Amino acid sequence: MDNKEISQAVIARLPRYFRYLGELKNDGIERISSQELSDIMKVTASQIRQDFNNFGGFGQQGYGYKVEYLYEEIGRILGLDKTHNLIIIGAGNLGQALANYINFERRGFLFLGIFDNNPKLYGMKTRNMEVRPIEEMESFIKENQIDIAVLTIPKSGAVGVAERLVQWGIRGIWNFAHVDLNVPESIQVENVHLSDSLMKLIYNVNRVEDEEA
Amino acid sequence: MDNKEISQAVIARLPRYFRYLGELKNDGIERISSQELSDIMKVTASQIRQDFNNFGGFGQQGYGYKVEYLYEEIGRILGLDKTHNLIIIGAGNLGQALANYINFERRGFLFLGIFDNNPKLYGMKTRNMEVRPIEEMESFIKENQIDIAVLTIPKSGAVGVAERLVQWGIRGIWNFAHVDLNVPESIQVENVHLSDSLMKLIYNVNRVEDEEA
Repeated sequence: MDNKEISQAVIARLPRYFRYLGELKNDGIERISSQELSDIMKVTASQIRQDFNNFGGFGQQGYGYKVEYLYEEIGRILGLDKTHNLIIIGAGNLGQALANYINFERRGFLFLGIFDNNPKLYGMKTRNMEVRPIEEMESFIKENQIDIAVLTIPKSGAVGVAERLVQWGIRGIWNFAHVDLNVPESIQVENVHLSDSLMKLIYNVNRVEDEEA
Repeated sequence: MDNKEISQAVIARLPRYFRYLGELKNDGIERISSQELSDIMKVTASQIRQDFNNFGGFGQQGYGYKVEYLYEEIGRILGLDKTHNLIIIGAGNLGQALANYINFERRGFLFLGIFDNNPKLYGMKTRNMEVRPIEEMESFIKENQIDIAVLTIPKSGAVGVAERLVQWGIRGIWNFAHVDLNVPESIQVENVHLSDSLMKLIYNVNRVEDEEA
């Protein structure tokens, strides 16, 4: 399948489809029309059909989608049928929160190591990992075939660490540092800029208050 | 100023402009052209001009933008010239990480309370807050004019808590629970679905690997 031309907007919606279909599956629902899926997901049925057409359609007109099949296909498209080896860089609260998020493991995201540059944290247990010094990262990445790094360190160190991660063979960075990284295009970066998200919320709250005033 | 018709896509970009302008300001840069801003932010100059035109432009053709003025104007548009009172619901690692994020306070986001339903956590100190029982939330929200709630609880409880928050006068919810909330349209919700973000990253890493294979 040639996925090259599928837009990031479509890709961004796939995990949400996957989540809703997983819930429908757990509820024992076997079949669903695009209109029903539209009602619960609050996107238009035409959007759903367009999105799915990127991957060959999945369903038959007037017949609906098979929930379990669709759930598994979308999971496969997302790559959840494979496992991925991850490390976390930054063993603060956020790094620990992500390490402890049990659902990630169920999806094949295996957190194998957590690193920090604060000696006070070395050896501290998080889940089933001990916090290791940053200096051990290079050999750890190579020995454990790590492909994804999660960056939960302050922005001052993030750009430099990201450059080294790329040299050591990391393919994707899940970036929580409050800075945009500068890495080659072949390296995938997904930013979670928490302040940006909170500012957007604040803007929308203010806007509604202004309208009501 | 009538902000009603400004798209959420534009709003979502404002915090990033704000972040880059803040850095330019800190670096002592007084003036910048849309082309220079385009180069460092990696969006087109035409996109920048279009975005800023939503708010009356900010700059003069061929003359560039005044960095400090633009920084302050965008901050004002985002509502960062006001303070907002927030509570966190869920005192796990993620709730604690957000409570400890010092930059939020500098932006006028005041975290005043943190709540949990686990009695073992009651009284635990996070930053300068003690974890309180969920039962105290209603009176706390009313006494402290809380307008924003941060939800860092598992999805099973989130929908019900969100409904009560709305009854108690909350205007905005920053939702980290892995579920879409069902609240009236006048209540602003900003979702941070971490699994969705990680899945998107995994998809993109797999896609590049498939292309190279």
